[in-house]
Amino acid sequence: MISQSFVEVRDLHAHVGGHVAIGGWVETTRIHGKVGFAVVRDGTGTVQCVFVKAEVGEECWSELASLTQETAVRVTGEVRAEPRSPGGFELGVTELRVVGRSEEYPIQPKEHGVDFLLDHRHLWLRSSKQRAGLKVRAEVEQGIHDFFYERDFVRIDTPILTGSIGESAGTLFETDYFGEPAYLAQTGQLYVETACPAFRKVYCFGPTFRAEKSKTRRHLTEFWMLEPEVAFADSDDNMDLQEELVVHLVERALERAAEELEVLERDPNALANVRAPFPRISYTEAVELLQREGSEIEWGSDLGGADETLVARQFDRPVFIYNYPTQAKAFYMKENPDDPRTVLCNDLIAPEGYGEIIGGSQREDDLDRLLHRIREENLPEEAYGWYLDIRRYGTFPHSGFGLGLERMVAWITGRPHIRELIPYPRLINRLTP
Amino acid sequence: MISQSFVEVRDLHAHVGGHVAIGGWVETTRIHGKVGFAVVRDGTGTVQCVFVKAEVGEECWSELASLTQETAVRVTGEVRAEPRSPGGFELGVTELRVVGRSEEYPIQPKEHGVDFLLDHRHLWLRSSKQRAGLKVRAEVEQGIHDFFYERDFVRIDTPILTGSIGESAGTLFETDYFGEPAYLAQTGQLYVETACPAFRKVYCFGPTFRAEKSKTRRHLTEFWMLEPEVAFADSDDNMDLQEELVVHLVERALERAAEELEVLERDPNALANVRAPFPRISYTEAVELLQREGSEIEWGSDLGGADETLVARQFDRPVFIYNYPTQAKAFYMKENPDDPRTVLCNDLIAPEGYGEIIGGSQREDDLDRLLHRIREENLPEEAYGWYLDIRRYGTFPHSGFGLGLERMVAWITGRPHIRELIPYPRLINRLTP
Repeated sequence: MISQSFVEVRDLHAHVGGHVAIGGWVETTRIHGKVGFAVVRDGTGTVQCVFVKAEVGEECWSELASLTQETAVRVTGEVRAEPRSPGGFELGVTELRVVGRSEEYPIQPKEHGVDFLLDHRHLWLRSSKQRAGLKVRAEVEQGIHDFFYERDFVRIDTPILTGSIGESAGTLFETDYFGEPAYLAQTGQLYVETACPAFRKVYCFGPTFRAEKSKTRRHLTEFWMLEPEVAFADSDDNMDLQEELVVHLVERALERAAEELEVLERDPNALANVRAPFPRISYTEAVELLQREGSEIEWGSDLGGADETLVARQFDRPVFIYNYPTQAKAFYMKENPDDPRTVLCNDLIAPEGYGEIIGGSQREDDLDRLLHRIREENLPEEAYGWYLDIRRYGTFPHSGFGLGLERMVAWITGRPHIRELIPYPRLINRLTP
Repeated sequence: MISQSFVEVRDLHAHVGGHVAIGGWVETTRIHGKVGFAVVRDGTGTVQCVFVKAEVGEECWSELASLTQETAVRVTGEVRAEPRSPGGFELGVTELRVVGRSEEYPIQPKEHGVDFLLDHRHLWLRSSKQRAGLKVRAEVEQGIHDFFYERDFVRIDTPILTGSIGESAGTLFETDYFGEPAYLAQTGQLYVETACPAFRKVYCFGPTFRAEKSKTRRHLTEFWMLEPEVAFADSDDNMDLQEELVVHLVERALERAAEELEVLERDPNALANVRAPFPRISYTEAVELLQREGSEIEWGSDLGGADETLVARQFDRPVFIYNYPTQAKAFYMKENPDDPRTVLCNDLIAPEGYGEIIGGSQREDDLDRLLHRIREENLPEEAYGWYLDIRRYGTFPHSGFGLGLERMVAWITGRPHIRELIPYPRLINRLTP
């Protein structure tokens, strides 16, 4: 049991004065006359190891000189409190053992092109900003699960391989399923809706796929999406839940990932206003606002990224835009009884140009109107038989939304490209490593 | 905000004597002279609603008679403690409103064939045993996330779309990725290994895919897998972690899903012995044991399902079988220095014939030996370049394992078929609904 012979760097504070071994990877070394230093990262933290030539002996001293970037080492020594050292502790080395050499590590402490870094994503993960971004992602994910678990939602894992078709054909990945065509799910929503009569409040969270030829900094072909669905909830309830969730996740990141946000140079003040209530404006109000600001948008068109940014700029926190025109939105959204040109839906627009992070709606629960919309959009009616059954057998008002994880985390961390907030991004021109 | 006008059935205890409305689906009704009953499920619980003809009025009374299975209703009434009622409370009805009719609901309170039920999976979800099984699944999933979060593991979401090949070609789903072939991941392990030098202790949890033509009750083409990986951990550490996890998940299910296990008629005593330490026997000892029991297995072959069951029967809790012959296991497992015919690995076999629920190993961290194994197995070396880099740049001992969620939950719930423990099972002959 080798793990017991190592102390984790994050726990060094509990071993001051003690003699311990750590195992990790060398970030940098330097030698000043008869004193040398190696900064070692063990995945839980980074610590400076101090070598005094007269104390460590010839062999150890020359081993220190041989250490290259990312060499795996086992370092034994005395733990000392050292306020000037990053992390507050250092190791007075007594023994050094090389576990794994590292010759000509590709990622040097200099500027690299993004294609080079993405080609070496398996190594780039070790860099401090990448670590910080992915740590925030993991924190947000646990925050999502905790939020819904504490509120008695039941997690429902929806299928990736589907015979039926989600939001938009033409952007589907297809595979041969023992002789019949299958498609990778673009959304779990239709499936998660069916679980409402079983559990009332449900959610799915998993990878989703879009074979879109989009090359923007906001698109991935494979991304993770959260999709909650609540029975006996309307569009207003839906916006309340979104607001509560977003406030919760931002607060959690600020509290539990403060160190990572600092590494990413994210100003916490940029997130300080993310408190309820978020402003809520109708699509019609948004169009009027945009026209006043000089946009040429006309009522009926969907908002583009530039429009969203222009609207977001008017507010100091995320803003809801609700009740879009029917033709701009998906077939499953409920007709607005007060204005049948529109549907009961919302987008949530993040500040600072991060755009839409959530899209939600009350669902069309009237079988005839839903059928009408499916036919209007020329969707394959027979593929939706099971979905329509939910309206045939005890239909009920319900609402839900989809939150794109990478966009959410990009906003929280202030990173410009969502590709850095997923361990292995899949882009139109990138399937490896 | 319609949600505020409803009380959830699970919260009725806090409203005794009060007047509330619930929204849900009718399970059964019966009328005895001038008193009627409707059992309503709202997704959080089930409550008996009591109608007294003289009190509710003609219209409401005839509406009661019209209620069919799975009609969605809003029922208003007074909450009364009633120890004889399931759940302990009932509703003295003052008002009934039909929200959504349900004519000829396909699933009747009688025996249906499994194909019929799977064809109606979107409705079958509402049945009590299906709800219970999926609730245990969700509890186990949250248990997994909490277990690793509390132990400072970092969650790493590994890609589904991959250019390279996992454990075994020939059982891969393929798709066209903008002109090049991509494969649906059979495992996240190789990817999650690369994150060890960044975070030391990591895990992935998500859907995985096998295009296997297996038609057993233990196979799905799409299933969820947990794969933790720990740097500076050996095979013994690995078994310790597996043991701790399994004990944790079983305890959590017994504590937090007791009601669901009762619905499933799972005897909690069957799980009472799932405590550390689990017995650990070597593959060689297992073969000797099997031969004594009359099996014709010879040293060198992998254990079949019947062998596993025979071994498991000797113990009152899960049993580890460790260090299998090299030829029976995957290329990435570390050669056993004490017996190079074997690798440092383990399977964890559940009791009661549930078979392998975990497979784990220490990873081959020696670049040359790993290359040798890749060539020996005729695997496409160039596809593993990035994976080999982890051995090129600071290689280190590390170990990990894979736990199949549906098999684990089938064992905990005592269900014979894993297809019931995933919301929408994908089988060789089933891609819908």
